[in-house]
Amino acid sequence: MDELELIARVTARFSRPDDGLGIGDDAAVIPPSTARALSVDASIEGVHFERTFGPLEAIAARAFEAAASDLAAMGARFESALLSFEIPSTITGAEFDAILEGFARAAERAGGHVVGGNIAKGLRLAFHTTVIGRLDRPAWTRSSARPGDALFVSGPTGAAAAGLTLLFRGEARRAPALVDAFLGPRARFDVAAAVADRARAAIDLSDGLLLDLGRLADASRVAAVIELDALPAHPAEASVGDVLDLPLLRLTGGESYELLVAGPRELEGTAGLVRVGWIEEGVGVRVIDARGEAIPLPEVRGHVHR
Amino acid sequence: MDELELIARVTARFSRPDDGLGIGDDAAVIPPSTARALSVDASIEGVHFERTFGPLEAIAARAFEAAASDLAAMGARFESALLSFEIPSTITGAEFDAILEGFARAAERAGGHVVGGNIAKGLRLAFHTTVIGRLDRPAWTRSSARPGDALFVSGPTGAAAAGLTLLFRGEARRAPALVDAFLGPRARFDVAAAVADRARAAIDLSDGLLLDLGRLADASRVAAVIELDALPAHPAEASVGDVLDLPLLRLTGGESYELLVAGPRELEGTAGLVRVGWIEEGVGVRVIDARGEAIPLPEVRGHVHR
Repeated sequence: MDELELIARVTARFSRPDDGLGIGDDAAVIPPSTARALSVDASIEGVHFERTFGPLEAIAARAFEAAASDLAAMGARFESALLSFEIPSTITGAEFDAILEGFARAAERAGGHVVGGNIAKGLRLAFHTTVIGRLDRPAWTRSSARPGDALFVSGPTGAAAAGLTLLFRGEARRAPALVDAFLGPRARFDVAAAVADRARAAIDLSDGLLLDLGRLADASRVAAVIELDALPAHPAEASVGDVLDLPLLRLTGGESYELLVAGPRELEGTAGLVRVGWIEEGVGVRVIDARGEAIPLPEVRGHVHR
Repeated sequence: MDELELIARVTARFSRPDDGLGIGDDAAVIPPSTARALSVDASIEGVHFERTFGPLEAIAARAFEAAASDLAAMGARFESALLSFEIPSTITGAEFDAILEGFARAAERAGGHVVGGNIAKGLRLAFHTTVIGRLDRPAWTRSSARPGDALFVSGPTGAAAAGLTLLFRGEARRAPALVDAFLGPRARFDVAAAVADRARAAIDLSDGLLLDLGRLADASRVAAVIELDALPAHPAEASVGDVLDLPLLRLTGGESYELLVAGPRELEGTAGLVRVGWIEEGVGVRVIDARGEAIPLPEVRGHVHR
């Protein structure tokens, strides 16, 4: 398919009859509002995914969720997305429609719309997704954690990385639920909404717990402590404990769009938040075992794409 | 350079000390405002440019201007940009800094800032630039042209395409000024501001006059007429008239970020606008010669990237 055919399909999928503007014009228009949060994320064939990982609709939806997660981590509500695609000329109409469907459904599920985009020829698929959200209160930042805050995660921190590892090894059948954890994450707007007025700082775990928590601790000029045994496991992890280093994946595995939240201890259990550590005076991140003794940190602290 | 080194350079270049948020957090935050216009555009090595075309700083600045042009075409004022990069691991620090410098300077010149972005590994350079602008009045659209409107362009419509053709042929030395027209365009915010309250519709000429004007005519449900001899020439075109089909390039050459404006005849001369035709009842685009006779339209109406 050529560029004009691709554009026609995008226009057909995303035009909204009630909309005077948007798809088809030079730029999309969004209405006046309170402050907004903006972020962009890329999902690239051969770097972030292979087509063999699953249906294109799921791969596209995952690209959306990965981008939208940054809005959830700021306490913003998703509103609009712009899609900048690189598309190989070998793509079929059905394949391209599946991609559009994945983005459209994920955006609608998150409460907003695709309002514009761009298509360029590519050697391989690449999705650069810009997301815009409304901020009805001051954004959470990485720099607001304070000594005495408890640290929480919204779900298993290693499951997505475990699923991705299985996919790369061609062993997806060992634990399909972990593959689903990789391929079907949801930006945790539910968590953000539930703790909006009580959390102090938040960050998503896209680069892995140690790396992302380190960024939060550095930005806040505090130290962070993680209790390794407190990190929640995905039920399906039990079946791969012999082939994957699960404690390491929970600490360093990326591609997880769970939130890390700093705030008062009473948040425990709200929207499924699990307490995994605390903030104290100092510098850096420590991981401790059940006896409170420090565990040596792995050399590679976070997720680095191939 | 690895991803973390690249991120460190981005943070160093774009952080603003007066900013509590932005670079370094999950998402950028922009303040409350009137309506905003949003657009995204891609500039990809091997598709839109080759590194041999010129300094990386100029290539980056051009990528910014190409994206920002869509805001000018809506009558919006540039405010913020998000940069989503694909960067080969072979890039040097100096090369990457030149790219950042190109974006930073172009954004500042246009009156705004780079507020966020993303970096991914790439096989070749790719810049996906999201631009956000303020709309202090209703946006121009493609659908508002009316019979009786005059059509104007803000500058030579074929010069950038002529320069690009010379670059691809390795004949840049024939007409360096045309290469500059390709490599150093400016989003025409000056034109947009000068005609803001009087123009009826506008579009940029990134895909070529015939294709873009056809879109405007279709969206407005009107016909458009172009007087071929009225299309302005770049002074340097004289030196390549023997090797390039200049009338064809003026009609179909893309990569030009001049504006096409529909509005009252009195706009002529404002901010350098040149009258090149008119809108009338009907469908489609006609091109006429000095005697008013129709000229056959080329089969390929616009610019298609390699």
